[in-house]
Amino acid sequence: ALSEVAEKLHPADIALLYEDLNEEEREFLSSSLGTKTFSDVIPELPDTLIEETLERFTTAEQSDILDRTSDDDRADMLQDVSDEARQRYLSLLEPDDEEVTRSLMRYGEETAGGRMTTQIGRVHIDMNVKQAIEELRSIQEDTKTLSRIFVVNDQGTLMGKVRLRDLAFNKWDTMITDIMEEEAHTVLATADQEEASQMMSKYDMLLLPVVNEQNHLLGVITFDDAMEILEEESTEDIEKMSGISGEQSEESYLNTATMLQFKRRSPWLISLAMLALVSGYVLTNFEALLQALPILFLFQPMVVAAGGNTGGQAATMVVRAISLGEIGKNSKRAVLAKETMLGLLLGLALGLTMYAFCIIILPMLPMFGPSEFNGIGYHELGFAVAIAIIVQLTTATTAGALLPIAARAIKLDPAIVASPCIAALVDISGMLIYFSTAKALLGL
Amino acid sequence: ALSEVAEKLHPADIALLYEDLNEEEREFLSSSLGTKTFSDVIPELPDTLIEETLERFTTAEQSDILDRTSDDDRADMLQDVSDEARQRYLSLLEPDDEEVTRSLMRYGEETAGGRMTTQIGRVHIDMNVKQAIEELRSIQEDTKTLSRIFVVNDQGTLMGKVRLRDLAFNKWDTMITDIMEEEAHTVLATADQEEASQMMSKYDMLLLPVVNEQNHLLGVITFDDAMEILEEESTEDIEKMSGISGEQSEESYLNTATMLQFKRRSPWLISLAMLALVSGYVLTNFEALLQALPILFLFQPMVVAAGGNTGGQAATMVVRAISLGEIGKNSKRAVLAKETMLGLLLGLALGLTMYAFCIIILPMLPMFGPSEFNGIGYHELGFAVAIAIIVQLTTATTAGALLPIAARAIKLDPAIVASPCIAALVDISGMLIYFSTAKALLGL
Ligand SMILES: [Mg+2]
Ligand SMILES: [Mg+2]
Ligand SMILES: [Mg+2]
Ligand SMILES: [Mg+2]
Ligand SMILES: [Mg+2]
Ligand SMILES: [Mg+2]
Ligand SMILES: [Mg+2]
Ligand SMILES: [Mg+2]
Ligand SMILES: [Mg+2]
Ligand SMILES: [Mg+2]
Ligand SMILES: [Mg+2]
Ligand SMILES: [Mg+2]
Ligand SMILES: [Mg+2]
Repeated sequence: ALSEVAEKLHPADIALLYEDLNEEEREFLSSSLGTKTFSDVIPELPDTLIEETLERFTTAEQSDILDRTSDDDRADMLQDVSDEARQRYLSLLEPDDEEVTRSLMRYGEETAGGRMTTQIGRVHIDMNVKQAIEELRSIQEDTKTLSRIFVVNDQGTLMGKVRLRDLAFNKWDTMITDIMEEEAHTVLATADQEEASQMMSKYDMLLLPVVNEQNHLLGVITFDDAMEILEEESTEDIEKMSGISGEQSEESYLNTATMLQFKRRSPWLISLAMLALVSGYVLTNFEALLQALPILFLFQPMVVAAGGNTGGQAATMVVRAISLGEIGKNSKRAVLAKETMLGLLLGLALGLTMYAFCIIILPMLPMFGPSEFNGIGYHELGFAVAIAIIVQLTTATTAGALLPIAARAIKLDPAIVASPCIAALVDISGMLIYFSTAKALLGL
Repeated sequence: ALSEVAEKLHPADIALLYEDLNEEEREFLSSSLGTKTFSDVIPELPDTLIEETLERFTTAEQSDILDRTSDDDRADMLQDVSDEARQRYLSLLEPDDEEVTRSLMRYGEETAGGRMTTQIGRVHIDMNVKQAIEELRSIQEDTKTLSRIFVVNDQGTLMGKVRLRDLAFNKWDTMITDIMEEEAHTVLATADQEEASQMMSKYDMLLLPVVNEQNHLLGVITFDDAMEILEEESTEDIEKMSGISGEQSEESYLNTATMLQFKRRSPWLISLAMLALVSGYVLTNFEALLQALPILFLFQPMVVAAGGNTGGQAATMVVRAISLGEIGKNSKRAVLAKETMLGLLLGLALGLTMYAFCIIILPMLPMFGPSEFNGIGYHELGFAVAIAIIVQLTTATTAGALLPIAARAIKLDPAIVASPCIAALVDISGMLIYFSTAKALLGL
């Protein structure tokens, strides 16, 4: 019953199902569905399950699975297994497949080259439509998509592209040169995968040709990999922005080992805790002030947290805009001006709110008696709190925008200096701003 | 020179260029590039620029631009202009275009129907390859992609699909029924766009057919729109997770008005500030404790911030996993167990670090004298701080995982209860945990 259900599923769904099975059920599913299905399922599995799943099959079956897998998926799979297994699997490949696989494995996993497939429709510039169709018919089974066919010269230089529909709807003696179009966008094999996916998204590209420095066509990135890259890169940004370090793993959340999660989360947690001790030290320096005017305790967490929140909002906006390519190198000033203005506006709004709280709500609260106020009036207190909020929010918002831009300038990923980092910094500045303002304005 | 450069650019790049121009330059660019180019450029512009750009053209030119635009882009454009302009533009359309446009505008902008195009390759199930190719040739200019051709019956019910290559490489008298495949995945027109894009990404789909309840084929979502949706939805999640409310606008960061940004950021900022006053109130209740043992000030911001950071990390992991469809309805327990374990481990790691700080570093720091310690030893203090950290991090991490799951259960977007919300809550619990632990363990 299990295998009957599974047969009708998409390989991506079979992979999800397989992940949730126990040892015995996995063995049963892999033997009943066989190599043809599993050659599509294995590339969808988390990295950690690839080797153990391949090892369920005999050598002849492994060879069949590896032969059926597309070249980019095969290279990715072999990058995720042990050295011993990798050598063994490579030896099972046909010589030409082995060569392609080895060459693809040379590119970093997160580069354009590491994401490309070499199984593309490729015709020579001197061909006519009939010759091109015959060429494509002979390779069609090995080709992932024929929607765009690339035109190369003797040296393998990319000369242009034709659409399959142009071949299908044109006379057989039409020359390729007469119907081909220029390919305006290509990416270097060594470029980051993010650059490739952003280009494909911006220009609505089905396939992006990957070339070397001499503009020789090496392969293409397909739209489905572009979608995967977009999701991976967004996840990476989101995680970095929460102080989770390391590469976004290809594994799903529930399949990531707890210890791996621990390793990714603890470094920032502990570093930021050290920074927070500085906040604590600032606080100890204002002990006397707090003893003199205990009501100041009431607003301290709020001033500090509001700075962290607004700084975090600014950083989020800027980091995302940088990721989506919306902030050019020369719009830094415009961004900073905008965020400083926003910080001021938000500070005014929250400052006024808290001033109103001090003069309207606070007098009605019975738990805060005269001993807390030490002779300071509600208006005076509200004014000091409001000024501190305005200064804190303006500086925190500006810092939230500035830090990611500065990080990019020194070639750091803007996402890593987002929320938690900024929160830790504005905790410190917030304490200083709040207590100094109170001290000065209230004459203490 | 401007228009010569622009002519060679992709419409997406012309749109970016146009955005940065002043009034006079915009007028010059629109008149020199003309309606053919601008029919591709206008759909790429931010919502706020659509009407003003269309108004640069004469009525005849507007009619030409609207005629050249694809149906889904046309509907989106008309959704973003004033009521008066919408009626005027609709009256410029040919009757059949007007009908299609009106029907597309009925779907919400963020639904599958609101994202689909009706300009698809569609053949009847009784045709043979020759008839199908003739049918497609007649509509090819109006069709966005012919890579997949959909097969329908007399009622318009979706029966299957063929690939263009199957038509190109098969004999002319082959029946469509002999070469068509089943279409396993479709989406309802009323479904959220996110559902559609997740399905396309998971199943590597170039085109996703959009159907009504009767399985009649209404249109398709194309891969380029799927990429756009993936980016929009990630941006939406990231923004919500930083306490930025409201819909992610289609405008770029720099083109969003400052007041709009203010409206999106201030509600959470002010609500969370109110919540932070509760933290302040808790703090005022421990005034006497702080006066008795001032060194407790040193660790208070750290205990509180560490809870916010680890709670935020947990929430991020869970929200993203929910967004990517990795957490099923029945893996809630596994997630909570995992995060509780992680909170405990992180608490142990940070607790031990701070214990070591108390017994090794603290005695060497000259600024903290005996008056701060009030007779409490370094070991005792370190022990109390470590226990507070372990309790705070375990509860904060669990809360960080629980809140998004609970939000989903009551049909709220999990992203809105992420970082800043959790930080505000664990600020309060952190104060209580820290001071109560210190009070109990240190016998004060
Ligand atoms: Mg992998
Ligand atoms: Mg890998
Ligand atoms: Mg690869
Ligand atoms: Mg696009
Ligand atoms: Mg691939
Ligand atoms: Mg990356
Ligand atoms: Mg990145
Ligand atoms: Mg729009
Ligand atoms: Mg629409
Ligand atoms: Mg996929
Ligand atoms: Mg579209
Ligand atoms: Mg949405
Ligand atoms: Mg969402």
